[in-house]
Amino acid sequence: MNLLLLETGDFIDQHTVLIDDWRFEHCRDILKTCAGDSLSVGLLNGHTGRGVCTEIDRQHMRLHIARLTDTPPPALPLVIVLALPRPNMLKRIVRNIAELGIKQLHLIHSQRVEKSYWQSPAVQDKKLHEQLKLGLMQAKDTMMPEVHRHYRFRPFVEDILPGLINGREAFLAHPGGDKQLEHSDQQRLLVIGPEGGFTAPEVALVEQQGVQIVTMGQRIYRVENALTLLSGLSGT
Amino acid sequence: MNLLLLETGDFIDQHTVLIDDWRFEHCRDILKTCAGDSLSVGLLNGHTGRGVCTEIDRQHMRLHIARLTDTPPPALPLVIVLALPRPNMLKRIVRNIAELGIKQLHLIHSQRVEKSYWQSPAVQDKKLHEQLKLGLMQAKDTMMPEVHRHYRFRPFVEDILPGLINGREAFLAHPGGDKQLEHSDQQRLLVIGPEGGFTAPEVALVEQQGVQIVTMGQRIYRVENALTLLSGLSGT
Repeated sequence: MNLLLLETGDFIDQHTVLIDDWRFEHCRDILKTCAGDSLSVGLLNGHTGRGVCTEIDRQHMRLHIARLTDTPPPALPLVIVLALPRPNMLKRIVRNIAELGIKQLHLIHSQRVEKSYWQSPAVQDKKLHEQLKLGLMQAKDTMMPEVHRHYRFRPFVEDILPGLINGREAFLAHPGGDKQLEHSDQQRLLVIGPEGGFTAPEVALVEQQGVQIVTMGQRIYRVENALTLLSGLSGT
Repeated sequence: MNLLLLETGDFIDQHTVLIDDWRFEHCRDILKTCAGDSLSVGLLNGHTGRGVCTEIDRQHMRLHIARLTDTPPPALPLVIVLALPRPNMLKRIVRNIAELGIKQLHLIHSQRVEKSYWQSPAVQDKKLHEQLKLGLMQAKDTMMPEVHRHYRFRPFVEDILPGLINGREAFLAHPGGDKQLEHSDQQRLLVIGPEGGFTAPEVALVEQQGVQIVTMGQRIYRVENALTLLSGLSGT
C-alpha cells in the first residue's frame, strides 16, 4: 500500500479521519505507523497529499489531513474488453486494471467462458471494488475504474461495442494475427479473449465492428500477462 | 499448458514417451486427452512438434513422437537482475520469467530483502524449476532459463555485475529517475529492486557500474507487473 485511500465517510470533521478497518490494520501491522508519522493519502476519486497520524492504538487510528491538492497519476487512454476469466484470475486482473491506470473495463461472456464464472462472488461489485482499491493504493491513484458486465456475447458486440469504439483505434489480441501492436498515446480499445481464445465466428463478429486483429508473437501468454504487456504499449 | 514439455528420461524408445506424473494428470483431467489426440510437445532445451496419444488410462499415458523439428519462440534479449521477492511472489515471477522468454535471471540480496526469504523452499532449484517449466509450457517454449543466486549485494554489484553488463545497455528501474525506457531489440540488462526500492547507497553503487536510472512514471507497480511492463519494451 503506497497510498492510503480515504472516503468521505472516513472524515469525522473537515481535517480529521478515523479508520478502524483493514487499512488501519495494515498501517499498524505492516507499515508500523506511529503517532507523528506522515502518510501518503488520497480521497477516492479526488486529490492526493499527506496525512499525519495523530493517534493509533489497538482499535483505530486518527489522521490529520491538510488540504489535498495533488492530482493522481494520469489514466491510460485504454478501454479493455475482456472475456470473463476464472474467478481467482479475475481477482488479480481487476487489481492490475486499477494498478495499471485503466479506467474502463468491460467483462463479457463468450463461448469458452464457463457460465458458472458469472455466479462467483468475485464478479460482484463488492469484491470487484475491493480489488480495484488495492490496485489504486498500490499505484498511488484515487480514480476508481468503471467495471461493466455483459452476459451475452452477440448483443454486446453488435449493439454496445460500436459505441465504445466511437473513434478509438480498436484491436483484438488473437493468435494468428499478422500485425503487431505498436506503442501509441492515442485512445484505444483492446479486446482480450478467454483462455483458449475466442472461436472463429466470435473473432469474425468482432472484426465486423472494425476491430483489427493483432498478434503477440509466437508465445501464448496467460491473460493477466497479455493484459499487462499490451497496456505497456498505451499512454505516454 | 499449451505445450507438453518432455525430458529425455520420458522416452522409453526413440519415438515413444510414457508419462505418469502431473503432466499426465493435467492431460487426463483438464485437456481431457483421448487416444488418437494430437498434442503440441517439445523436448526440454530442444525442438517442438506434435505427439499423438496412443494410450491413456488411469495411471499413465503413452505418446508417439515423430521427429521434432520446429524451433521454440525466440528469447528476449534481456538479462534480469532482481532483488529477491517474497517467496509467494517469487513463484509467480519465476513462472513469468519463463513465460515472457527471459533466459537469465539473477536473484540478489539487498538491504530491503528479508534475510529469511533466502531460506524459503521457493528459492531452491527444485521449486524454481517447477515454476520455470510451467512458464515454458504456457508460452510453448522449451529453453530453460538460468537462475543464479547472489547472497551479498556489494560483491555482486562490484565483481559480477560488470561482467553481466559486458556491452549490454543496462538500466535500473527506480522511482525518481527522469528518463523513460524506450522499446529496443538490443541486448539489455535490467535491474529491479525490492518492494520499497533499493536504498540510496545501493542505487549509487549500481550507477557506478554504468547502469542508467529509468523511471516508470508516477505509478508504483508491484514487482511482477514492473517486470512484465519492462519486458514488453525488449525484443522485436
